[in-house]
Amino acid sequence: MQEYIDINSDVGESFGAYKIGEDEEVFKHITSANIACGFHAGDPSVMRYSVSLAKKHGIGVGAHPGLPDLLGFGRRKMDITPKEAADYTTYQIGALQAFAKAEGMSCGHIKFHGSFFTALVTKDKKLADAVVEAILKVDKDLILISRPGTELDESARRLGLRHAPELAVDRARHSDGEPVSRREPNAVTTNALEVADRVERIMKEGKMKAVDGKDISMGPFSSFCIHGDNPNALEVLRMVRARLDEIGVKIRPLKEFFD
Amino acid sequence: MQEYIDINSDVGESFGAYKIGEDEEVFKHITSANIACGFHAGDPSVMRYSVSLAKKHGIGVGAHPGLPDLLGFGRRKMDITPKEAADYTTYQIGALQAFAKAEGMSCGHIKFHGSFFTALVTKDKKLADAVVEAILKVDKDLILISRPGTELDESARRLGLRHAPELAVDRARHSDGEPVSRREPNAVTTNALEVADRVERIMKEGKMKAVDGKDISMGPFSSFCIHGDNPNALEVLRMVRARLDEIGVKIRPLKEFFD
Amino acid sequence: MQEYIDINSDVGESFGAYKIGEDEEVFKHITSANIACGFHAGDPSVMRYSVSLAKKHGIGVGAHPGLPDLLGFGRRKMDITPKEAADYTTYQIGALQAFAKAEGMSCGHIKFHGSFFTALVTKDKKLADAVVEAILKVDKDLILISRPGTELDESARRLGLRHAPELAVDRARHSDGEPVSRREPNAVTTNALEVADRVERIMKEGKMKAVDGKDISMGPFSSFCIHGDNPNALEVLRMVRARLDEIGVKIRPLKEFFD
Amino acid sequence: MQEYIDINSDVGESFGAYKIGEDEEVFKHITSANIACGFHAGDPSVMRYSVSLAKKHGIGVGAHPGLPDLLGFGRRKMDITPKEAADYTTYQIGALQAFAKAEGMSCGHIKFHGSFFTALVTKDKKLADAVVEAILKVDKDLILISRPGTELDESARRLGLRHAPELAVDRARHSDGEPVSRREPNAVTTNALEVADRVERIMKEGKMKAVDGKDISMGPFSSFCIHGDNPNALEVLRMVRARLDEIGVKIRPLKEFFD
Repeated sequence: MQEYIDINSDVGESFGAYKIGEDEEVFKHITSANIACGFHAGDPSVMRYSVSLAKKHGIGVGAHPGLPDLLGFGRRKMDITPKEAADYTTYQIGALQAFAKAEGMSCGHIKFHGSFFTALVTKDKKLADAVVEAILKVDKDLILISRPGTELDESARRLGLRHAPELAVDRARHSDGEPVSRREPNAVTTNALEVADRVERIMKEGKMKAVDGKDISMGPFSSFCIHGDNPNALEVLRMVRARLDEIGVKIRPLKEFFD
Repeated sequence: MQEYIDINSDVGESFGAYKIGEDEEVFKHITSANIACGFHAGDPSVMRYSVSLAKKHGIGVGAHPGLPDLLGFGRRKMDITPKEAADYTTYQIGALQAFAKAEGMSCGHIKFHGSFFTALVTKDKKLADAVVEAILKVDKDLILISRPGTELDESARRLGLRHAPELAVDRARHSDGEPVSRREPNAVTTNALEVADRVERIMKEGKMKAVDGKDISMGPFSSFCIHGDNPNALEVLRMVRARLDEIGVKIRPLKEFFD
Repeated sequence: MQEYIDINSDVGESFGAYKIGEDEEVFKHITSANIACGFHAGDPSVMRYSVSLAKKHGIGVGAHPGLPDLLGFGRRKMDITPKEAADYTTYQIGALQAFAKAEGMSCGHIKFHGSFFTALVTKDKKLADAVVEAILKVDKDLILISRPGTELDESARRLGLRHAPELAVDRARHSDGEPVSRREPNAVTTNALEVADRVERIMKEGKMKAVDGKDISMGPFSSFCIHGDNPNALEVLRMVRARLDEIGVKIRPLKEFFD
Repeated sequence: MQEYIDINSDVGESFGAYKIGEDEEVFKHITSANIACGFHAGDPSVMRYSVSLAKKHGIGVGAHPGLPDLLGFGRRKMDITPKEAADYTTYQIGALQAFAKAEGMSCGHIKFHGSFFTALVTKDKKLADAVVEAILKVDKDLILISRPGTELDESARRLGLRHAPELAVDRARHSDGEPVSRREPNAVTTNALEVADRVERIMKEGKMKAVDGKDISMGPFSSFCIHGDNPNALEVLRMVRARLDEIGVKIRPLKEFFD
């Protein structure tokens, strides 16, 4: 069985007077924080606060770039060019790096949000290559959290960007491994026990059950993602951590996997 | 007479399909480019392009942070707190640093835009101190271009931030040295010859004529600012450079003043 | 004692994935809904939903225009010209009218939000006149909910716009009647019993106690405002309604005051 | 030969300090103005000014709704739901109606912009039906300017919305009648003489030449569209109007076609 794992979560998604997520609690349970950078969510003050929370809890900070669609929370498909994708990536990494620097930390990883991520794993390799090149130009040591077997993952491998395979353990999946669309009611598994069971089986057997009842082979993974904006995200986080403890898996920050 | 001077201009203020300024030409005549960072103007693709133009022409790039008011081009007063001011500054510097890094350059200076600048020089020192501290936390070597004798200038001095006194040579002034409000028709001097004459007198005598006809003592300055969004900005730029050549003043990039 | 009163509340302030307020509950207790119009809060889908809720509960809908500052929730001072104020008003009224029309209703009133309202009651009369004229041009029968004794109220009177004096009963006040700034911790009275007592005394005696302990004379009012974004807004609403019932005051929609 | 035609153009696409198009000139040559409503372009002050220009020149005003993507000028595909499409339409019509009302005019037509239009003519009929129903609910007398033979046109027919077939005469076309993508260099025909010749042949023979040299049969049309944001839009407009005069076609406002 795999001995250790990182836990990442999307955080810092509040905006001005608008609050999403129980970040103060979520930060207690994760090792990598994917911080929204002001395009699909987040704002400068939320970013500063999120980085300060990460510092307080001793966890890693990463950029969580999204599409410029606050109204759609970055979840709507938008047709962007490879150049635009690269530029949006550069801009958002830079903004987060500055807040990390100001707190004496560094931005260690990057994970794309919503439809930006979907575009990178479903469109042709030009888009994926463009953002991977953009990342390398800004910081060649950044770790890309991504889904194994995708075009984005392949670009990272080909172009020499460090990358960490992750699994969103609270997402239901089709038997081809694809997550069920968020437009479906059962897209996100909110039952904490079910997610903990799933996590245990993935660690032990490298398998999970798809929505059609078939087993899917998966992994190994460097990181598990648990979404912070679910109503019972905290319960899921707590139960997953407890289960990992029980079965003897250590929770370690992502960067330690690469040192 | 002062032997050298830097010339800075606000550039990169286009946005998406919207174009402002003749940047391709302006970059030929300046030594420091103040690049808009997406709040009052500019967007990620414009920023990348602006940095690439600066690289091509061998000139310095700096962040030009503005208030989050694209509709008002950052020229409307907004009541922001010192924390917000600091966070907006950190965010915008970071975004520009990333584009500079991607081009193998570095962001060397910072100059505030429009009403953000006005707030920093007219409000109490809390606001000025907050942004100066924010700048120092992100990059203690940044050079702040600002107006001498202001609260912002004083904060930089007190807190140890490098700062360069500038004069906006194309702005008409009252006899107390304050620029005429942009709401007045004569705020910007668009006659290139008049600006060149003014520049010559400032370099030689340290004086210029106010709108009421009185002489004002000014300087010395490290940089002259010429606004790129005026209809005949290019003519002003060319004539000022020619005049400086004529009278034997060298045009040198800002950073050379500090090395 | 005054026999009837309208109760208005600011609603429809959610935006995309961001939710603010318990509108489904608030609509049960009010007679006039001030619906955000997409500038400081709200979006087209939230507006449609808010109007449909109003229809379901048989209450009046009004436009709640704010400044174009989503990040600041329209609560930051912005320096806008009378023309801009008029144009922002026209635009936002129109947007709401269309949703009202689509539901077979009509937009019956208007109430300004946050710093837009503050500017209208504290700046010179040019600003107030500009928006009152803009309202009259779009719909001369709109009822302006405003604070009595202000420049805005005076403009409405002078220019012939119907206006309804309101009191924000959950706001603490100085002895000159001005509400305590939202930056102060005690700006909003969240104790439901205290607000109900205050309401009873205002209805019976036309007086309330200021923060310095002095009595202020107030009223009469056509409408009471209770803010929907307070943590216990619902309890305040319920208790105020119950108290008004107890003392025999009828809750009637605003428009009935003018027919 | 057809005896009369309307000429429409997209106008009011400036935003704050950003100017696009020579509207003051364009308005002299058209009979229907499609005014941007603040989503992809335009702002409240630009809308007021555009309506006032239309009034001055005695031409019809219509809403020109776009996707909420100012950065992409509404030209990037975005995946929006039928409900969102309906709500964005309602909102934007309402905003323009208010400015028309304020000037003593009325909003007489509607034409969708860029990728909003493309989505309506290329996606399934749910999207087209949703916006047509939204239009009918706000104003059942609005005239939809659209491309004949599309899903949108069909929805208008089926649901009882008045609609006017138009041709963008300055766009090159494939032999199936589809316009050449704006990403292609020859998408827009900027040669005024070529457009005038094309217009004459369409009026006389109902044919134009596709990019592959084949003849396409087209028409009849109620309106010709000429894009105001092309570098020589004015020359195209003047020459088309002159040619229509020469061949005896009258230019009449769209609404006269339906009265």
